[in-house]
Amino acid sequence: MLRVQQVDGTMDKFRVIEGGAEKRDIHQTMLAMGHAARRAARRLALAPRQRKNAALMVAAGLLRTSARDIIAANGRDMEAARAAGVSKANLDRLMLDEARIEAMAKGLEDIAALPDPVGRVLAAFDRPNGLRIDRVATPLGVIGVIYESRPNVTADAGALCLKAGNAAILRGGSDSYHSSAKIHACLVEGLKAADLPEDAIQLVPTRDRSAVGEMLAGLSGNIDVIVPRGGRSLVERVQEDARVPVFAHLEGIVHVYVDGAADLAEAKKIVLNSKMRRTGICGAAETLLVDLACADTHLAPLVTMLLDAGCEVRGDPRTRTVDPRVKVAADEDWRTEYLDAIIAVKVVNGVDEAIDHIEGYGSHHTDCIVTRSAHNAERFLAEVDSAIVLHNASTQFADGGEFGFGGEIGIATGRMHARGPVGLEQLCSFNYRVHGDGQTRG
Amino acid sequence: MLRVQQVDGTMDKFRVIEGGAEKRDIHQTMLAMGHAARRAARRLALAPRQRKNAALMVAAGLLRTSARDIIAANGRDMEAARAAGVSKANLDRLMLDEARIEAMAKGLEDIAALPDPVGRVLAAFDRPNGLRIDRVATPLGVIGVIYESRPNVTADAGALCLKAGNAAILRGGSDSYHSSAKIHACLVEGLKAADLPEDAIQLVPTRDRSAVGEMLAGLSGNIDVIVPRGGRSLVERVQEDARVPVFAHLEGIVHVYVDGAADLAEAKKIVLNSKMRRTGICGAAETLLVDLACADTHLAPLVTMLLDAGCEVRGDPRTRTVDPRVKVAADEDWRTEYLDAIIAVKVVNGVDEAIDHIEGYGSHHTDCIVTRSAHNAERFLAEVDSAIVLHNASTQFADGGEFGFGGEIGIATGRMHARGPVGLEQLCSFNYRVHGDGQTRG
Repeated sequence: MLRVQQVDGTMDKFRVIEGGAEKRDIHQTMLAMGHAARRAARRLALAPRQRKNAALMVAAGLLRTSARDIIAANGRDMEAARAAGVSKANLDRLMLDEARIEAMAKGLEDIAALPDPVGRVLAAFDRPNGLRIDRVATPLGVIGVIYESRPNVTADAGALCLKAGNAAILRGGSDSYHSSAKIHACLVEGLKAADLPEDAIQLVPTRDRSAVGEMLAGLSGNIDVIVPRGGRSLVERVQEDARVPVFAHLEGIVHVYVDGAADLAEAKKIVLNSKMRRTGICGAAETLLVDLACADTHLAPLVTMLLDAGCEVRGDPRTRTVDPRVKVAADEDWRTEYLDAIIAVKVVNGVDEAIDHIEGYGSHHTDCIVTRSAHNAERFLAEVDSAIVLHNASTQFADGGEFGFGGEIGIATGRMHARGPVGLEQLCSFNYRVHGDGQTRG
Repeated sequence: MLRVQQVDGTMDKFRVIEGGAEKRDIHQTMLAMGHAARRAARRLALAPRQRKNAALMVAAGLLRTSARDIIAANGRDMEAARAAGVSKANLDRLMLDEARIEAMAKGLEDIAALPDPVGRVLAAFDRPNGLRIDRVATPLGVIGVIYESRPNVTADAGALCLKAGNAAILRGGSDSYHSSAKIHACLVEGLKAADLPEDAIQLVPTRDRSAVGEMLAGLSGNIDVIVPRGGRSLVERVQEDARVPVFAHLEGIVHVYVDGAADLAEAKKIVLNSKMRRTGICGAAETLLVDLACADTHLAPLVTMLLDAGCEVRGDPRTRTVDPRVKVAADEDWRTEYLDAIIAVKVVNGVDEAIDHIEGYGSHHTDCIVTRSAHNAERFLAEVDSAIVLHNASTQFADGGEFGFGGEIGIATGRMHARGPVGLEQLCSFNYRVHGDGQTRG
């Protein structure tokens, strides 16, 4: 465990290390955290689900009873952020109030209520020689989470890692420094109350950015995977520099393709929801592709609907003929994740050209076809190589909660281990347990 | 596709590139192979199983009809290897005869007969809003295989990758240069006959070692995973330098723990088979742990049996008391993968100390408990954190074929994606296919 003079909780670790903040100290501190996490992970892997759940329930209770404290700490963070000229959007992400703290507490209780992912028999093989071989879910080990403004990630990510039997090393944003520390203290109290190692969820006790570099280097083999939660620049840095596996997506260039065989009313409903329900999330649509076969009937109503809903439309030449408010789409637009009320619109020649466009410009995150043709739907779902492909449903369903995973630590577009929403199942590894009665190999 | 002047098959690619063998050319050649593999992978991902199987069956037939050619090419490799003073063991690995070629051909047919791993529905979620979400197996993408002397890996690895819909970039050992080229030519003819892209299985057309470095760097994102097949130094280099995920194990420090509640006859049978059936494979036992509780009755018979079978025994002080032939075990011995008729033997105090020893000295590959105690067996299987844990069965079952996977591309000790024998299932990724009827998110 990280042993720094501690007077009244986590906050003191911060001060002590910030006081003598030399790179060498940070290196040693981070390595010590890695070793402590590995030791905790070994104990956690064997912890019965009752104790993991008890830790979460106690932490949830403490979040509620500590709400005033947390809000006060958050006030300090908000003040500093305002002084530093942090954007309004980021201030909103940072802000905690009673309702958000209640949501966090509820989140922990929801995770406690989920089935334990560890120990599930994923597959079983009965061999002719009488061996029974089970593939059994085990924890992954130690998970590093690097996040930005949202202090609630401290609770969400810590809880998901714990539930799957993993130790977590959390590195919150400098902005949310004091808020995250208070939330983390509640998690630690929960672990202690459940007689679990308190190093099971550690918060990096420094704002120094070199701590991130240490995590990306893997802490001498003591981080098994890194999950970045934040904007493009954070994810980009993590993906480029990490020497350990990363669960992440860089961007969601999400397409809705309205096929020639689409019902117009259904298409309108799905396009509007995919683009405008929330424009700032990774599952929000960024490009609308309309089949030439239905352009005469569907293109104008779709474009007008979007414009009337307050969405800027950037179109190819054909799209620009339907409304003078449509702006010119440059090649860049097909590669842009707006995360705003803007959409690029293009007419394509059938499902083949739609698939080619998506494979050429997309980000393999989430893509949707609207059609009444089972054949075209099947082709689209089979041929678009994205983590999530949908038929006749809003792209905004790209979310672990909506999938029924009871929470997600992020959405991954890599092809290894986890893809799409990363829930408890993907926070597990597995091993093989072979049951014999004296078998030897011939 | 790699376009180099081609006169009579793959061999000419070799000569052309070796002729002007500058690093820059190799860099460009390897990048071109990466791009060609990615294009082939996209087509392969959608290929029906019949075509993949047809390619394998044709290749199997060609291996048989080309046996003379292959043996002649192998003769050149053997001659060069003998001249270079290659060890007897490696000469045996390199050697091909009619029987080994028949085994290779049969191997391809066996893989063709396996169920297609692509398109399996791994999980399905029916959501309250009527969405049906399927998690469906998809290929991983492009797999790089780096191997040493055994030319049969060309066929085995190429076929497993193909069956799982992946493109393969194979980099055989310099020793097996001509043999691998002939085998590869059969695979390419199979692909052509089945109207599959011939770049689906590419063989690196140079012996220059910098090609390996290019592969480890990932060919501009066009290799998704690397599988090293060979000795410790190869695996070590790949694990250290690869910038892409690796499926591998560095070593198999495999333990058999004979518990106090073990039946002696069963223990003898399992220990003898685990150590002596074949000593050079990764699943061969290297350390025997005997419970203090049965040391009086079990230790001497086990040690004597091993010595009598021609196995050198290196023991702790207690073990050395049972037979004067037992040598001294140094600390180093508990960490050594002998791959030979040598075993380290130690007396431990019960299952706890056995588990501690294995966690401290082992390699998380394969470990076994022999016991009649269900309680101790359960603890061992749950607490030993190895890819494969066995109860009352020989450690030499650590093999994808023995698990019923119908072949393996290797055994992995990492915790991400694949662990234990890496068969067709682990050569797949997955995505989510969401079936709706107009659902939007509230």
